[in-house]
Amino acid sequence: MAIRLYELAGTDPNLVFSPYCWRIRFALAHKGLHFESVPWRFTETEKLAFSGQARVPVLADGDVVTSDSWAIARYLDATYPDAPLLPNPAHARFINAWADGVLGPAIAPFVVRDILDIIPETAREYFRSSREARFGRTLEQVVEGRESRREAFAATLMPVRLVLREQPWLGGEAPDYADYIVAGSLMWARCVSRFAILFEDDPVTTWFSNVRALFDGMGEKAITA
Amino acid sequence: MAIRLYELAGTDPNLVFSPYCWRIRFALAHKGLHFESVPWRFTETEKLAFSGQARVPVLADGDVVTSDSWAIARYLDATYPDAPLLPNPAHARFINAWADGVLGPAIAPFVVRDILDIIPETAREYFRSSREARFGRTLEQVVEGRESRREAFAATLMPVRLVLREQPWLGGEAPDYADYIVAGSLMWARCVSRFAILFEDDPVTTWFSNVRALFDGMGEKAITA
Repeated sequence: MAIRLYELAGTDPNLVFSPYCWRIRFALAHKGLHFESVPWRFTETEKLAFSGQARVPVLADGDVVTSDSWAIARYLDATYPDAPLLPNPAHARFINAWADGVLGPAIAPFVVRDILDIIPETAREYFRSSREARFGRTLEQVVEGRESRREAFAATLMPVRLVLREQPWLGGEAPDYADYIVAGSLMWARCVSRFAILFEDDPVTTWFSNVRALFDGMGEKAITA
Repeated sequence: MAIRLYELAGTDPNLVFSPYCWRIRFALAHKGLHFESVPWRFTETEKLAFSGQARVPVLADGDVVTSDSWAIARYLDATYPDAPLLPNPAHARFINAWADGVLGPAIAPFVVRDILDIIPETAREYFRSSREARFGRTLEQVVEGRESRREAFAATLMPVRLVLREQPWLGGEAPDYADYIVAGSLMWARCVSRFAILFEDDPVTTWFSNVRALFDGMGEKAITA
């Protein structure tokens, strides 16, 4: 039975943009596993009821249903041990925590307004009101002056840049889930917005381009806004 | 032949305070290796000439001389493979980069002035002028208002806190070099200053206390300002 990946999608079902779903897209490709993408839109809670929770990604591998990107990555390593994603999960946890707690919140104020334009009409009111409540401002106010905030964002990426001075991938000599964690967050920005958050001459930009080139250019070919 | 560790020390040779040296103190204890501490003070460049560079920590293990904390940790794993410090160096590199690039610079503005009081008279002019050039302000100005900056510092520790929700140590079920990296930076603050940078009720505070309790309370018993 095929693997199905429930992913956050835009009006265009092929525009998938969740950082957590991108982690798993890359992870499945890393394992050489084919999957069927099931587009899921904000507010479609019923569609995920079978998973016992309300968020994507959800991986349905035959009868085994797993949610939460970290749990899915662990499931994939346990079930398909070739080409490990997480040779040492304890340390990769820190990278995951940094991406969730620092990188994601740093990216959001650049692109959150643009998400409105790519999601279906029916989801916009939910998206706007839930996110504006979180930020305490309108989405338009949140992204205001983003050009002037690129330098500060580049500083946020410092740990990635320091690692890339020493090794070509966050995974070391070859890419692994550490790369997909961070690249997943950057794919989110890339897919939902035309605004370039990275500077051209940043080594992080080169590495991100290398991640997109993996798996026959899966990230590079991704549908964007 | 005994292992000698050249460490940054205060006027009191037992007050060792470099974050990088503390990483190696913990690492040696983790391996169960005894070592002789050789106190080194700022400006004593000649004393390190044998290592071909000018910074501590320097580890002299018989005839083998290694400098740079990361290189020393790798050397210890290669030479004494029991009780690995870095089961996956590639991912721990990120934690090391975060500690060097984010945590260290976040701690410095709390404690850098206090370092003047614990180092020998002869090193103070060097320390003040080199650090003031780096900050572009007097050391007194740098630490000004530090009480009001504790909340922001706590936010910086977010990735550590998120990891500790999932596992007791940064190393997973048991401490390893990931713990010593981050605890080393916190030992720096603890040893040079009476100012408490951590909040009592922070899970990071509990974890840090647990690290200090390791190895017969090595960190807990450390001489402080």
